[in-house]
Amino acid sequence: MELGMIGLGRMGANMTQRLLLAGHSIVVYDQNLEAVEASGAGGAIAAASLADLVDKLAAPRAVWIMLPAGGVTDAVIDELAGLLGPGDAVIDGGNANYKDTLRRGEMLAQRGIHLMDAGTSGGIWGLAEGYSLMVGGDTDTYQRLEPIFQALAPGEDKGYAHVGPTGAGHFTKMVHNGVEYALMQSYAEGFELLQAKQEEFDLDLTAIARTWQHGSVVRSWLLDLAVRALEEDPGLESLAAYVDDSGEGRWTVNESVELAVPTPAITAALYQRFRSRQEEPFGARLLAALRNQFGGHAVREAGSR
Amino acid sequence: MELGMIGLGRMGANMTQRLLLAGHSIVVYDQNLEAVEASGAGGAIAAASLADLVDKLAAPRAVWIMLPAGGVTDAVIDELAGLLGPGDAVIDGGNANYKDTLRRGEMLAQRGIHLMDAGTSGGIWGLAEGYSLMVGGDTDTYQRLEPIFQALAPGEDKGYAHVGPTGAGHFTKMVHNGVEYALMQSYAEGFELLQAKQEEFDLDLTAIARTWQHGSVVRSWLLDLAVRALEEDPGLESLAAYVDDSGEGRWTVNESVELAVPTPAITAALYQRFRSRQEEPFGARLLAALRNQFGGHAVREAGSR
Repeated sequence: MELGMIGLGRMGANMTQRLLLAGHSIVVYDQNLEAVEASGAGGAIAAASLADLVDKLAAPRAVWIMLPAGGVTDAVIDELAGLLGPGDAVIDGGNANYKDTLRRGEMLAQRGIHLMDAGTSGGIWGLAEGYSLMVGGDTDTYQRLEPIFQALAPGEDKGYAHVGPTGAGHFTKMVHNGVEYALMQSYAEGFELLQAKQEEFDLDLTAIARTWQHGSVVRSWLLDLAVRALEEDPGLESLAAYVDDSGEGRWTVNESVELAVPTPAITAALYQRFRSRQEEPFGARLLAALRNQFGGHAVREAGSR
Repeated sequence: MELGMIGLGRMGANMTQRLLLAGHSIVVYDQNLEAVEASGAGGAIAAASLADLVDKLAAPRAVWIMLPAGGVTDAVIDELAGLLGPGDAVIDGGNANYKDTLRRGEMLAQRGIHLMDAGTSGGIWGLAEGYSLMVGGDTDTYQRLEPIFQALAPGEDKGYAHVGPTGAGHFTKMVHNGVEYALMQSYAEGFELLQAKQEEFDLDLTAIARTWQHGSVVRSWLLDLAVRALEEDPGLESLAAYVDDSGEGRWTVNESVELAVPTPAITAALYQRFRSRQEEPFGARLLAALRNQFGGHAVREAGSR
């Protein structure tokens, strides 16, 4: 079927490619003209603007947006609201906050446009392996778009589902990413313990990780990635111990607070990332100062380590 | 090759069966005579006592013990120390504390007996899928016993490794189980968040979990088990929210303290299990009392909920 794709970053470009391979007709647009040309060379129909993209699609139209969360997504959806008509659908495959999605969905619904939120997992591996899709939105529109979800998913009958109304897709993807933070932290703590004992036991972390890949309770795709990383650099010495976050972990913790659901592992995982970015945190200085104040315990001077 | 197997519980009996299928000759003993008979009916050679088991093996002997951690393992190893001779090997496949293993290894080494610690993961699925084995101990003995490890592992070339000297196998298995606690807690928190939002979004947790199995970053064997559990009982209403622990999580946290390695997710996972067993914890009563003391905040009387 016919689909518009807006946003040809790493994710959008790969998804366009996967859809083209499945025989769909994809009209693409991005502010970056080189990205549009590259997708065009791969078989997509290039559009010169959002209006041009909408013109090149037959009603009822379906436009997938794959953009950074926040203002960029808002600006594009606002413009699409004026270009699309009743019965058309916008599918937001990005990592939007589900509350933004609820607001945007209401705005579009007033014009008869359906907002589908397709939480998308798979990263740079999705092109080859397929994407896991958690889709929220209207049931009829979901069914109309199912061939698109099938082509993006790892198989025609797996890896995608209609999880609820508009907002439910991004909510589910947010929780997915929160779980991802805690799973990563789980392995990080385990390998740090093994590493701390390496001298005593001469442990081969890569060999251990490979052992865990087969038959063990902790086997997973993230463990497979840990094996790859350890094979490339067994001591991970080429990396700084600095870990960024992209927002979904924060949203998950905020949601835990809102729903009063304890999520200590997810919260710890997020806080460990914050801690990884601090060099000499004020809180630790205060702890040192207090130990010195009440007990005369030795402190280290700033810059001494 | 020839192997003695002591301890025919769920794990030991299945491992015996897997070894017999691979063509090895297994002499079995357990205090439970019915278990010995069952393994005998499956092709194992039944022994009437530890001494009889040792008599039925040719030197250099190899005796695998698959027993509960602690006193039972100590008693059997002490008896074996008197029955076995120089060059023989004891393989402890149970979940022993690695410090006990170091102590037992020294005691056996004085008699020329090798203690190999084979941390074993795979649970009730190991019979069909193979076991992940993290083996500590002497290199020559490891190589001599490799056909046994190959038969138990998921494949001849995967899922087992020699990770270090005696003690390293059980240390690695302890960390494996600590990671397992935190991975389980990660999913538990995510599904609890989804469940808390189920009313608003009418989320189908089983469908979501199935979506995550294919193409998503959080796919894993534990997630596959979560899907099975949710398929059997979507609300998990047949289960009390009561979670036991078998000790390895505690050892991992103790080790974190000893090595001064922060493991907040593993620690939180362990503490959440402790919390799951409390009905009206004293700490929460004290919090309620203090809120009432300083702010006059309302409290609930004992037995009122």
